[in-house]
Amino acid sequence: MQNRQKVSNAIIRRLPRYRRYLGYLQTKGVKKISSNELSELIGYTASQIRQDLNTFGEFGQQGYGYEVDKLYKEINRILGLDREYKTVVIGVGNLGQAITNYSYYYKIGFNIVGLFDANPKIVGNVINDVEVMDVSGLEEYIEREKIDIGVICVNRENAQGVADSLVKGGVKGIWNFAPIDLVVPDDVALESVHLSDSLHALSFLIKSKADEKKD
Amino acid sequence: MQNRQKVSNAIIRRLPRYRRYLGYLQTKGVKKISSNELSELIGYTASQIRQDLNTFGEFGQQGYGYEVDKLYKEINRILGLDREYKTVVIGVGNLGQAITNYSYYYKIGFNIVGLFDANPKIVGNVINDVEVMDVSGLEEYIEREKIDIGVICVNRENAQGVADSLVKGGVKGIWNFAPIDLVVPDDVALESVHLSDSLHALSFLIKSKADEKKD
Repeated sequence: MQNRQKVSNAIIRRLPRYRRYLGYLQTKGVKKISSNELSELIGYTASQIRQDLNTFGEFGQQGYGYEVDKLYKEINRILGLDREYKTVVIGVGNLGQAITNYSYYYKIGFNIVGLFDANPKIVGNVINDVEVMDVSGLEEYIEREKIDIGVICVNRENAQGVADSLVKGGVKGIWNFAPIDLVVPDDVALESVHLSDSLHALSFLIKSKADEKKD
Repeated sequence: MQNRQKVSNAIIRRLPRYRRYLGYLQTKGVKKISSNELSELIGYTASQIRQDLNTFGEFGQQGYGYEVDKLYKEINRILGLDREYKTVVIGVGNLGQAITNYSYYYKIGFNIVGLFDANPKIVGNVINDVEVMDVSGLEEYIEREKIDIGVICVNRENAQGVADSLVKGGVKGIWNFAPIDLVVPDDVALESVHLSDSLHALSFLIKSKADEKKD
């Protein structure tokens, strides 16, 4: 990949969005789209779109636009979605189960092959054809099965310990749902979803809009 | 609130994080903290922290630092977490159930008082003491019960329709988990959690780190 150093966090956040809209266009049978049309759909400016996509190479043709299928495929490749990831979920409460049961993740290559929990009442249960194992065997399993990704759905107190086991076992990435900022080595990818932070932001927005009305 | 116009999206994203760390400090019995200490903990620079918190008023004292309890309480107020929100969840699949069962949301004032689904097999079920209602009655219920927030956990195809009902019923905010960018009027707060986008970002980070190693 050229210009890799230039790929900012902002672009990383925008790429999945491009992918989402392009996937939608595919389902509608759209073959070709200009950066202006994409702009209307996505809400970014056309020049922003051209600039973003140019970071990764030349996808469009002047005066012609983008081929939807080709661009979708390219973005998949850029996002690393042209391969499969062996994935485990740790913490099989409601959220862990929601993730395990979401078929879309399997469709795009995130194959959940192992489930772990610390609760003896949950260990041994079978969810989506996978048996829940005791978390004490996590590190050994990660190493033996060459697991790529660990999804952390345990509580804040146990999250860093689970992350440490995942790292020692050799995962390449961690998807963290615990409300804590995990510490992992530089060569391990970390992406966190802080649901409570998002809910607090919503609360703030509601308050702000109410204050605006008062003015 | 003074200087409200200056509150950027970036600060809205940082405030819940301050709150999270301050809550943690409270559980550890910490009473006082300097911006430098906060900086080490949170990872923002001390000057960034002082600047952020100054946006909302004068919380710290030069050479003394911040009172943890007071600052936590103030941030709660700023975030609109000093009140309760009547909340409904629409779409009671795995994710909707995960949210409904997460006790923390109730603790911070988001009281889930109504559940809705379109599936006749799910309507009538009781989750966390709340009976699931048919989604056809959503708008009327929102209006009658003066619901503040709707949490959308339905699929992409039905999400905008549900959002429209919520808006017509008069909600103040929508927490959206469907993989679609909803359209709502300006006076309704919208916060979306696009889990798949987050997973794609993780995939991208994994790929980037693998590429770095090859160099």
